[in-house]
Amino acid sequence: MLETLKTLRLEAEDAVLFVTIDAAPMNLIGPELIADLVQLIEVLDAGSPYRVAVFKSADRDFFIPHVDVTKVKEYRQEAAKLTGEASIGLLFRRLSETKAVTIAQIEGRTRGAGSEFALACDMRFAALETAIFSQFEAAFGLTPGGGGVQHLVRLLGRGRALEVMLTANDYTAELAAAYGWINRALPAAELANFVSGIAHRIASFPTDGLLSVKARVNEVALAPVEAFRHDSDLFGEGVAHPETQRRMRAAFAAGFQTREPEMDLASLIGGLSAPTSD
Amino acid sequence: MLETLKTLRLEAEDAVLFVTIDAAPMNLIGPELIADLVQLIEVLDAGSPYRVAVFKSADRDFFIPHVDVTKVKEYRQEAAKLTGEASIGLLFRRLSETKAVTIAQIEGRTRGAGSEFALACDMRFAALETAIFSQFEAAFGLTPGGGGVQHLVRLLGRGRALEVMLTANDYTAELAAAYGWINRALPAAELANFVSGIAHRIASFPTDGLLSVKARVNEVALAPVEAFRHDSDLFGEGVAHPETQRRMRAAFAAGFQTREPEMDLASLIGGLSAPTSD
Amino acid sequence: MLETLKTLRLEAEDAVLFVTIDAAPMNLIGPELIADLVQLIEVLDAGSPYRVAVFKSADRDFFIPHVDVTKVKEYRQEAAKLTGEASIGLLFRRLSETKAVTIAQIEGRTRGAGSEFALACDMRFAALETAIFSQFEAAFGLTPGGGGVQHLVRLLGRGRALEVMLTANDYTAELAAAYGWINRALPAAELANFVSGIAHRIASFPTDGLLSVKARVNEVALAPVEAFRHDSDLFGEGVAHPETQRRMRAAFAAGFQTREPEMDLASLIGGLSAPTSD
Repeated sequence: MLETLKTLRLEAEDAVLFVTIDAAPMNLIGPELIADLVQLIEVLDAGSPYRVAVFKSADRDFFIPHVDVTKVKEYRQEAAKLTGEASIGLLFRRLSETKAVTIAQIEGRTRGAGSEFALACDMRFAALETAIFSQFEAAFGLTPGGGGVQHLVRLLGRGRALEVMLTANDYTAELAAAYGWINRALPAAELANFVSGIAHRIASFPTDGLLSVKARVNEVALAPVEAFRHDSDLFGEGVAHPETQRRMRAAFAAGFQTREPEMDLASLIGGLSAPTSD
Repeated sequence: MLETLKTLRLEAEDAVLFVTIDAAPMNLIGPELIADLVQLIEVLDAGSPYRVAVFKSADRDFFIPHVDVTKVKEYRQEAAKLTGEASIGLLFRRLSETKAVTIAQIEGRTRGAGSEFALACDMRFAALETAIFSQFEAAFGLTPGGGGVQHLVRLLGRGRALEVMLTANDYTAELAAAYGWINRALPAAELANFVSGIAHRIASFPTDGLLSVKARVNEVALAPVEAFRHDSDLFGEGVAHPETQRRMRAAFAAGFQTREPEMDLASLIGGLSAPTSD
Repeated sequence: MLETLKTLRLEAEDAVLFVTIDAAPMNLIGPELIADLVQLIEVLDAGSPYRVAVFKSADRDFFIPHVDVTKVKEYRQEAAKLTGEASIGLLFRRLSETKAVTIAQIEGRTRGAGSEFALACDMRFAALETAIFSQFEAAFGLTPGGGGVQHLVRLLGRGRALEVMLTANDYTAELAAAYGWINRALPAAELANFVSGIAHRIASFPTDGLLSVKARVNEVALAPVEAFRHDSDLFGEGVAHPETQRRMRAAFAAGFQTREPEMDLASLIGGLSAPTSD
């Protein structure tokens, strides 16, 4: 059924599936991308023939920038088709439990739910010179709803998780690696080869051991469903708040969800506090 | 009521409150400083008008060196006025839950309960060249009682938390950052501007989101009241032990709680094992 | 009774016990080494006279390479003599709770149960130029059974723990330190002096405080017995699986458990997927 995918391009090499996110113009998360992820997860959940899935982006500037905030209801409904709940947090948590080992190969900007998607993968490797990370929901008065809170606090610890989420700043790959947000930052020229190498290495090992290790790690480190659901609800309720709506309008007036302004989103969202003249 | 503070100097810039710890001669924690913290926390708990509080020191050599061990009972009684329990651990935990985002800006020595105060803040940034960290209670036969165990084990992991507390050594800002004790070490010349910048950035975001993120992070990463209370009790009971008392006398004979010897406290406490001739 | 040890050489300096692992030809874990560890732990459990135990290797290339996979039943039976359960995971967990502070001083290869032994120690310091770390069980379709899962996920976080265990790769001391697998990587020429220095420093402090800090840290960071038992059972059951047995035969044909091929074990186990001609 994967022939019907619109936003994901697939390329299989033995038991490794390379998945290129290609949701032009800039890989915002909308209902089509989520619908495709749902289909893909169903395939990965079946286990064989793919032991490893590598996610990368067709857009060199953006891995996934964040959700399309004009389509929250629509993409949530697509997520519900797999999990029964209208929440990408629970969908991403399902990805963390899928039978394939998942690796995010990140060259560009990875913010908001993009960061949360990467955090849901089993590993994250990023281009030292170009990758950018941000968990910026607090700039709009929101709590990250796709699992960012749960993963970041466990990976980074209380102080750095609070810094990352409360400043809503952009983080370089180097700092993201120092903080534990990603596994490692590698020179952009080496990244694809490195990821392909470990993907094929992992795929050469017996499935039973891979699944068992992943299950044992998840039992300790993957937050419970209730925690994901709580965060998801907080995000969903927060979106409707007047101040959040006002800041979103101001952000759109400043170019939110368009390519050039999103290159430096940290600056854009740093200027939303005063009412704007839009 | 903050006009009556004796050991904290306040300066407000919009929704950011800069709090300078100024408890001469060297910022030891005594009943006056705790009484002032109690007042301050009551103001921060009220939320508005301060979304962010930045703590720094008037003393360039000492952020907070540790408690005044001659006044344990007195400062504990001051803490009880807020929490109902004679424990600075529970007071510091209360600070971790206050409605302002708290940032420690650290230029000097930060040891014992000073480290625990910094750990209770939401973030810690330190001067690369001059800041020093130590959790040295074990050198006196004591368990850190102000939350140090709970925070360090979660931030640093088992091995490094044990190293830090069992060696009772001094740690540079660089090593403290590598271990996760602090968020980041920055050149001293840049520190104040950096902290002010993120403080004002955070303060420009809606209060609801800040509080919600903080609450969700605390739910995972802030140890329960019982754990703080247990550590606090261990410290309180330990202070009375004969060997702890003997080591404190030896330490005082070597200049404990005076300025010059405290510059290199790690050496001082490394020499307490043999009975001294005081 | 420690006069009867066959694989551990002891040297006491005041309250510090230096333990040199000397199980020629290459320090594989077998029944003799486990029997000796059982005896040693019984002595350390008694507390005095040893407040600190430092573990190092007589073999400059190998700290502990891993278990002797031909003697799983035998070494497990030796472990049961202390804990009542045939599991080195539970034995290592017991070591983590012993009354001495334990430090691993690592100069060579430390893989599989060798990594798990090091992780069971309270601290780990390694030679920057020569130490190598690997948790490679998944290459044979196995789950690490000696506590590696429990420690690595807590120290490294979900992403890096999965990377380490699923790639089954070799990690340098520098990367192991960056990931939190070890406390610190130090130049080989400084390592012994550094470890001896902190060992004697810790040993100069009162026993009560050391034990109390260790107990409080373990309460948070040492996984429960049930988790260790579960992992141990998974390993024990997995060893009998046909594909695991096939890979072990292929590994032995390629020199597994002999000195030269084990110098680059990561390459050896990377080539086991295709049936070999042994």
